[in-house]
Amino acid sequence: MILDKINSPQDLKSLSLGEMNTLANEMRELIIKKVNVTGGHMAPNLGILEATIALHYVFNSPVDKFVFDVSHQCYPHKILTGRKEGFLKEEDYLKYTGYTAPEESEHDLFKIGHTSTSISLACGLAKARDLRNENYNVIALIGDGSLSGGEALEGLNFASKLNSNFIIIVNDNQMSIAQNYGGLYDNLAILRETKGQAENNFFKTLGYDYCYIENGNDIEKLIEEFKKIKDIKHPLVVHLVTEKGHGLAQAVDNKEKFHWVMPNVLDETPAIAQNEDYTTITVDYFLNKAKNDSSFVVMNAATPGVFGLNSKVRETLGNQYIDVAIAEEHAIAMASGLAKNGAKPVFCVMSSFIQRTYDQLSQDLCLNSNPATILVYWGAITEADATHLTTFDISLMCNIPNLVYLAPTTKEEYLAMLDWSVEQKEYPVAIRVPAVELKSSGVEDKTDYSKINKYQVTKKGDTVALLGLGNFYFKALEIANLLDNVGISATVINPKFITGVDKELMEELKKNHKVVVTLEDGELDGGWGEKIARYFGASEMKVLNYGSLKEFSDRVPLDELYTKYRLHNELIIEDIKKAL
Amino acid sequence: MILDKINSPQDLKSLSLGEMNTLANEMRELIIKKVNVTGGHMAPNLGILEATIALHYVFNSPVDKFVFDVSHQCYPHKILTGRKEGFLKEEDYLKYTGYTAPEESEHDLFKIGHTSTSISLACGLAKARDLRNENYNVIALIGDGSLSGGEALEGLNFASKLNSNFIIIVNDNQMSIAQNYGGLYDNLAILRETKGQAENNFFKTLGYDYCYIENGNDIEKLIEEFKKIKDIKHPLVVHLVTEKGHGLAQAVDNKEKFHWVMPNVLDETPAIAQNEDYTTITVDYFLNKAKNDSSFVVMNAATPGVFGLNSKVRETLGNQYIDVAIAEEHAIAMASGLAKNGAKPVFCVMSSFIQRTYDQLSQDLCLNSNPATILVYWGAITEADATHLTTFDISLMCNIPNLVYLAPTTKEEYLAMLDWSVEQKEYPVAIRVPAVELKSSGVEDKTDYSKINKYQVTKKGDTVALLGLGNFYFKALEIANLLDNVGISATVINPKFITGVDKELMEELKKNHKVVVTLEDGELDGGWGEKIARYFGASEMKVLNYGSLKEFSDRVPLDELYTKYRLHNELIIEDIKKAL
Repeated sequence: MILDKINSPQDLKSLSLGEMNTLANEMRELIIKKVNVTGGHMAPNLGILEATIALHYVFNSPVDKFVFDVSHQCYPHKILTGRKEGFLKEEDYLKYTGYTAPEESEHDLFKIGHTSTSISLACGLAKARDLRNENYNVIALIGDGSLSGGEALEGLNFASKLNSNFIIIVNDNQMSIAQNYGGLYDNLAILRETKGQAENNFFKTLGYDYCYIENGNDIEKLIEEFKKIKDIKHPLVVHLVTEKGHGLAQAVDNKEKFHWVMPNVLDETPAIAQNEDYTTITVDYFLNKAKNDSSFVVMNAATPGVFGLNSKVRETLGNQYIDVAIAEEHAIAMASGLAKNGAKPVFCVMSSFIQRTYDQLSQDLCLNSNPATILVYWGAITEADATHLTTFDISLMCNIPNLVYLAPTTKEEYLAMLDWSVEQKEYPVAIRVPAVELKSSGVEDKTDYSKINKYQVTKKGDTVALLGLGNFYFKALEIANLLDNVGISATVINPKFITGVDKELMEELKKNHKVVVTLEDGELDGGWGEKIARYFGASEMKVLNYGSLKEFSDRVPLDELYTKYRLHNELIIEDIKKAL
Repeated sequence: MILDKINSPQDLKSLSLGEMNTLANEMRELIIKKVNVTGGHMAPNLGILEATIALHYVFNSPVDKFVFDVSHQCYPHKILTGRKEGFLKEEDYLKYTGYTAPEESEHDLFKIGHTSTSISLACGLAKARDLRNENYNVIALIGDGSLSGGEALEGLNFASKLNSNFIIIVNDNQMSIAQNYGGLYDNLAILRETKGQAENNFFKTLGYDYCYIENGNDIEKLIEEFKKIKDIKHPLVVHLVTEKGHGLAQAVDNKEKFHWVMPNVLDETPAIAQNEDYTTITVDYFLNKAKNDSSFVVMNAATPGVFGLNSKVRETLGNQYIDVAIAEEHAIAMASGLAKNGAKPVFCVMSSFIQRTYDQLSQDLCLNSNPATILVYWGAITEADATHLTTFDISLMCNIPNLVYLAPTTKEEYLAMLDWSVEQKEYPVAIRVPAVELKSSGVEDKTDYSKINKYQVTKKGDTVALLGLGNFYFKALEIANLLDNVGISATVINPKFITGVDKELMEELKKNHKVVVTLEDGELDGGWGEKIARYFGASEMKVLNYGSLKEFSDRVPLDELYTKYRLHNELIIEDIKKAL
């Protein structure tokens, strides 16, 4: 294998073109095999493979500095920068993260997993270089999909005025995660059609020098072009056209499916009927609602697949479906405008990405109290990468005035909350879609959710009150049963409302309870449980709060996290006994 | 007065051009006089006056819908939409807010005060209109300065693909609050030079139809042009060139100074030497540091004036000064990049605007633990408009891992913290610049701030511990003295660290204290005090938390807020007595 000889980018320099092409084939095979075992970003890495080899051949990392946007396309970079064993041997497959990570290598500048950040981060590197009178290339590599994010656009506006070397490589594979959306993409299409010659050039209007590379998967051409731009003394956009999924026919044919894949994607047997889960019942609700109400509209920001909004669903929804592209800020503000003008918007977003908007939640939406609905998916303590934690949505959102943030525990509750939210006209509402297996009570939920902050007592006891929020409601029930076994009587409460305290019920608890336990599947700091602790601060009631600690945990096994956070039932019971 | 006849936009329709010009003069005089008494946005409103008259003459509000970006330029709109008495009589000057406010008028769609939101909000209105098969104009009016914000750019990318009426009026007065910054502004300059004819057109690259209006202060021309575009069936950008401060020579000559003015700006006597305050000592620190360290760099996002970064200071700082334009997301990411590459960035930002970035604080900066410094100004409970509250910065920031958020109480502490932050290499650090009168201890602060979360006991007592954070430290001292008078012994603690709990000290307190009181000048929900309440949850200690409630208070007198929040010293003492 050529790869045997490659332990750092320096080792590339002595390869012939033929060897580099062979190397590309070797790396492609490794990436396909590895990702098919572990899951991960498939098509983006196959598309950028040749360019990564050419970049490392022409430039000198780590003196020259690369910043990869989202860094989901950094697998070839990792292979070339001393981490190839993570792709060679199955036992090492999980040794490295799927994103750039400075703790792994000096060739990685930042820990990155969210989108649209590379230009601004690289801008800082370049300006620091200039302040310190240093001399090297700073290169941001960003996909066309990521360009629609506000942070990237802010960075684009700023960076063109740097009076020094600054190279932005726009990896145009004509896709976001799904289809791109927005006027910018029509311009990219025109530029592709004219081989970069169109006068009407988005990047040039922002003041950039511009270079078009048509064959972004051709190492020879890439090296030729990169050599021309190396050490350039002003900001330049390299418009690099690549094929997403290059070299894997299935990925090329179905770019959206192969953007990020689950393990064994290549070995798939024909799909079996999907069980009912929170995603499927949501889509069913959407389709039914949309059919009966032309003002109902479903929104998402570039990740329709994870919400079950596949191409068939999108087609059925028609003009009642909106993909704003990667543009969460715009999504929230637009949802506010939609709600203000009599439409019924539901914006689907993942917990980790709702944090790409705060001011819009606060100012555009909540200050105006417009009745938009936000569905927050996957909020929970998980083994995720530090870049994709889903523990912060509660502390981010639950302290914004006027917002009603709901935590359902069953299918029936969820659907009742969703429909109430869509139809009411008073509040901006977010719902934390349960990130646990679907549970059904079998009984329609007729709760009036306009009675804000009304918790539900589901098991009456005394001494200890267990408040289990959302995902953790059934955990509260389990603990109550375990307490029963040791003769401790417990009340179980389903709080439902993340954004407020049921003061009446809390006062009731004071009569015959000594300990209140809050359980939330997210960060304790700034979260819901602390509101309960504050409420009881001046009373005799003892309060125990459970959730995750304020930290960026990074692929830590869940069991380990639960031990650290004392979330295992037996640890909680131990604490309760101690408090009594 | 012509204005006597104008009680709604409809009344404009019967005016002659001459009468409209007279009306403009009348309105200009009123605005100048009113703003000179109350303070407020002067130059933006003078610049947009004629366009507002022409818009209301041609279009039919409230059927046609206007969204004003920031809405700091809505004074002429308010005068024309039934609120003229707010400008006619001094006793009514404070009757209306300086921003659009739906509760005041059906002509105001949203409560707006932050920047770059209008396109996305209007996009929602337009899409809802289309879903409901309605038919009218939707118009976003946005200043050139606001265009650099990510939310506006996301909106621009999206809105060009609406297949229906959508009008964006770009009010190009060639200024942000200070000078604009970024490549986009060079394109606007080229468009002005070529009277809109340049092929190289930012808006056209995004797919917009484009119309250039050179004389944005000429009512006749404006009416002529607006008539042409009314009821247009596709997205259009109107590039409207206006003169900021038009009709007031001082404002035209000094656009930055007259953007937002304090009362009596026109009656100013020659400036007297400014007393030392937190702004002046910060600027002194900047100048001194920059002179001695070429890697030190001061950043802000389009509001240099409020931080004392006047043109002379900017000039002195030279390439060690960065105005990123309105682009807070970019600013935080760029600061992270600067710090990563060995520079020492300090980003100045107002409490109300730090909330325009969260994901960047979390992912770009704190996840990477790069040692950038953020100075958060004006964080406090105030009588501000609901759009500009400065109570949310603590709950926004203090739950982000790795961040060290500091709350100094004196000049010496502040400078020690600032210098520690600039020189250390371990943490991203934010400092809440005291929003109270400068206090000096006269003694250099030699605290080692690398000992994270170490609170300081400044008065030893027992029974009650008063923890006074930042602005409220001296309040804690006052209360301690008052408690002394009634025979209650109190410990006073200066916490200094907003982002953590001094567990060792808290354990100490358990020995001989019964009540812990936290005082913070910001929102209780998600704030610092709740961390203390949680810490003591399982103990016998009673905790009383003081701060503001989770609400968008809107120009409520401070005394009233303090009564509501029980922040008056006598109310706090009452609560303490009750808890003992």
